[in-house]
Amino acid sequence: MAKGPGLPKGTRDFGPLEMYRRNYIFNTIRSVFRLYGYQPLETPAIENLSTLMGKYGEEGDRLLFKILNSGDFRSKISDEDFINAGLPELSSLLAEKGLRYDLTVPFARYVVQHRNDINFPFKRYQIQPVWRADKPQKGRYREFYQCDVDVIGDDSLFNEYELIKIIDDVFSRLSVRNRIVLNNRRLLNGIAEKIGEGGKIADITVAIDKLDKTGIENVNRELAAKGLSAEAIERLQPILFLGGSVESKLNKLGDMLAGSEEGMAGVKEMRTLFDYIESDNLDSECVFDLTLARGLDYYTGTIIEAKALDYEIGSICGGGRYDDLTGIFGLAGVSGVGISFGADRIYDVMINLDLFPQHSEQDTQVLFINFGDKEEKYSIPLLNSLRKAGIASELFPSAMKIKKQMAYANSRSIPWVIIAGESEISNNKVTVKNMISGQQHIINKDELPDFLRNKN
Amino acid sequence: MAKGPGLPKGTRDFGPLEMYRRNYIFNTIRSVFRLYGYQPLETPAIENLSTLMGKYGEEGDRLLFKILNSGDFRSKISDEDFINAGLPELSSLLAEKGLRYDLTVPFARYVVQHRNDINFPFKRYQIQPVWRADKPQKGRYREFYQCDVDVIGDDSLFNEYELIKIIDDVFSRLSVRNRIVLNNRRLLNGIAEKIGEGGKIADITVAIDKLDKTGIENVNRELAAKGLSAEAIERLQPILFLGGSVESKLNKLGDMLAGSEEGMAGVKEMRTLFDYIESDNLDSECVFDLTLARGLDYYTGTIIEAKALDYEIGSICGGGRYDDLTGIFGLAGVSGVGISFGADRIYDVMINLDLFPQHSEQDTQVLFINFGDKEEKYSIPLLNSLRKAGIASELFPSAMKIKKQMAYANSRSIPWVIIAGESEISNNKVTVKNMISGQQHIINKDELPDFLRNKN
Repeated sequence: MAKGPGLPKGTRDFGPLEMYRRNYIFNTIRSVFRLYGYQPLETPAIENLSTLMGKYGEEGDRLLFKILNSGDFRSKISDEDFINAGLPELSSLLAEKGLRYDLTVPFARYVVQHRNDINFPFKRYQIQPVWRADKPQKGRYREFYQCDVDVIGDDSLFNEYELIKIIDDVFSRLSVRNRIVLNNRRLLNGIAEKIGEGGKIADITVAIDKLDKTGIENVNRELAAKGLSAEAIERLQPILFLGGSVESKLNKLGDMLAGSEEGMAGVKEMRTLFDYIESDNLDSECVFDLTLARGLDYYTGTIIEAKALDYEIGSICGGGRYDDLTGIFGLAGVSGVGISFGADRIYDVMINLDLFPQHSEQDTQVLFINFGDKEEKYSIPLLNSLRKAGIASELFPSAMKIKKQMAYANSRSIPWVIIAGESEISNNKVTVKNMISGQQHIINKDELPDFLRNKN
Repeated sequence: MAKGPGLPKGTRDFGPLEMYRRNYIFNTIRSVFRLYGYQPLETPAIENLSTLMGKYGEEGDRLLFKILNSGDFRSKISDEDFINAGLPELSSLLAEKGLRYDLTVPFARYVVQHRNDINFPFKRYQIQPVWRADKPQKGRYREFYQCDVDVIGDDSLFNEYELIKIIDDVFSRLSVRNRIVLNNRRLLNGIAEKIGEGGKIADITVAIDKLDKTGIENVNRELAAKGLSAEAIERLQPILFLGGSVESKLNKLGDMLAGSEEGMAGVKEMRTLFDYIESDNLDSECVFDLTLARGLDYYTGTIIEAKALDYEIGSICGGGRYDDLTGIFGLAGVSGVGISFGADRIYDVMINLDLFPQHSEQDTQVLFINFGDKEEKYSIPLLNSLRKAGIASELFPSAMKIKKQMAYANSRSIPWVIIAGESEISNNKVTVKNMISGQQHIINKDELPDFLRNKN
């Protein structure tokens, strides 16, 4: 036999066991989103490249999967263009469409297209795969799922609080112990302003974002390399290592940032948000960390990130407030806040911490052994009655060797096997075997649904 | 403002209402698949073109969406090849991957890759979108969902019976009245053999498949054009218009096809299948129609198709037995039988017959009006208590004008609004307003979850 078929690198099949586990995550996330009043949205996998290009930076443009124009794409390109065009130009001649790169840009497009029909605030969730032509590596795939939840058209910090509640609720249900880290971009703006480097806010946040990983010396070196004055770096130090309670941090920042409108707005927002959090009783630990700066060019207010406490894997949920989601498509002034759960990383955390429930109710509960035509006829109405009772059940389709049928039940982890042979039939009985304990019960055939319903 | 962003032709967004309805269909189908013991599988959207090409005929190859190679795809192609290659060659130089065209070929690839881990019979379902660069038209999209359910590795007609049960069960739950049409490819083979045109089975089935649409004269004209002898066409006539009960049809066919091994095997299979069906009590009408021939080059035994009775739209479910699913990937001898539900058509049927349930429990049930900080503080624990009780609830995030908040509740079809202003707060009460009847109830705040649970 020739080498068998394979999958493109960075892509995966999800067999039954992985599907049950993944659906356990997706269903948990989805049910929490619903409980909080968010509505479902789905957009197509294929978008116009004019919608996608230029939204994710140069790197993002390069990582977009582009779809070769269909039909006679060749006839529309001159030989000369073909030979002389640079790679980006040639791409744009060959491809007008691409695969969704995230769920945010399609969401922005949707909002702009439907702005006259949407009643704001618009609370939507979206759970779909995205594609990136990234170099595949451990934990990084070319096709992976995002679970986004956003509310747009409302400025209240109550929305941020709700998203933090959602993180807390989802991870409580999944039993993933976690820490939620919060910051506010306006605080960072205020700090940059106060140390006299307001124009270098991008460089400053990129550098301090690495504090965790590389340590203060490397951060300071990077800041100096970016042209920050020694004095500014000096003034930044106490801020980076601000200690104490949230309240005391905010008090100190209030003193430091006095006079910076942006900075004081950040202090006020953070205070409001922590007022909400502290009046609640969350499972997740919530901390305020000035060095959190994810997705700088995007977020304009609160920044949110959650990490698993018991397994090292980077952030498992993150997001923040953005004041201009739809500006890229010509609709200004729509503020929003949202977070995204990383289902693949959550899966890895849960596998490694053994957090998936053992027993899946979604799988087959009962297998009827097939002894032949006559026994099959006896079993089919019983099979139907179990299914009517909502109990997932199968009859082995052929009268194979019992050993093979039992092996099938074991391989599928089916907990109950029904044996209805000649002696059972003549007495209107069935034998019910528990595959875990090995125990057998002989019961009247009509009692089967009730018997199994009570056991499940 | 410039012309806003749009979607590629043949693709669609699904907003909240469409999502609820579509999920109603998908959830119904999925829950029936599970109840019958089928297991979930998902494969990636992107497959190697070597997996996809040549599996759907020349037309199919043309309709595949191909993904432009990422990175410096240009450098691997000489100018000469670039200029001189024909379209298919050029495509293959530019694209190594493509989008999934159906769920069957990826399933076959999966089975071959995992043949050593799979315990046969393998009963799997798969609900995912597929993509085809077809000319979009009413009811035909370039991205659409298929809901496939297949069992492979077992020859018993019990499997066909179960799939028919699944069709019956799904459409009963969806209240879609339907007719299930059955045929068997071996009968068609036998007939072709018997009329002396065994080599023309493909032409014969293509022609008679059109009997419904074009009438017998056109069918006969087509058969003659394909080179069938006048005598063969003559002998075919009574078979095409075979009347009477299934039993009498099968008896007549038994007489006609005596001596054709293939034909008699078809008679026997059909008889077995109808024995199963007639001992059951299905809602769907099941008929035997010799002119049903869908997907000829594919099916080798039973052929299955379901149509809605009350709305004209073509088949809403179809499938059959294939004896060599995995042969294309070098694994011979794996027989399977499967069906596919067309979710988009079922959606159209249900919209046009007004079959969707009015009230969606998945949507928000309760909105708390936001009167300001103090009232918000009073409401948040009540909001939390409702969510804990599993009741999807929202608090309007800002203290906007009441009129605006009420309009939001109406636009979202939220049935209950909670009013907790100064007088309610001082008495530990809330006012609960039913948005449909207009009725208001003043109740103790602690009774809110129970009150609403009983109403829902």
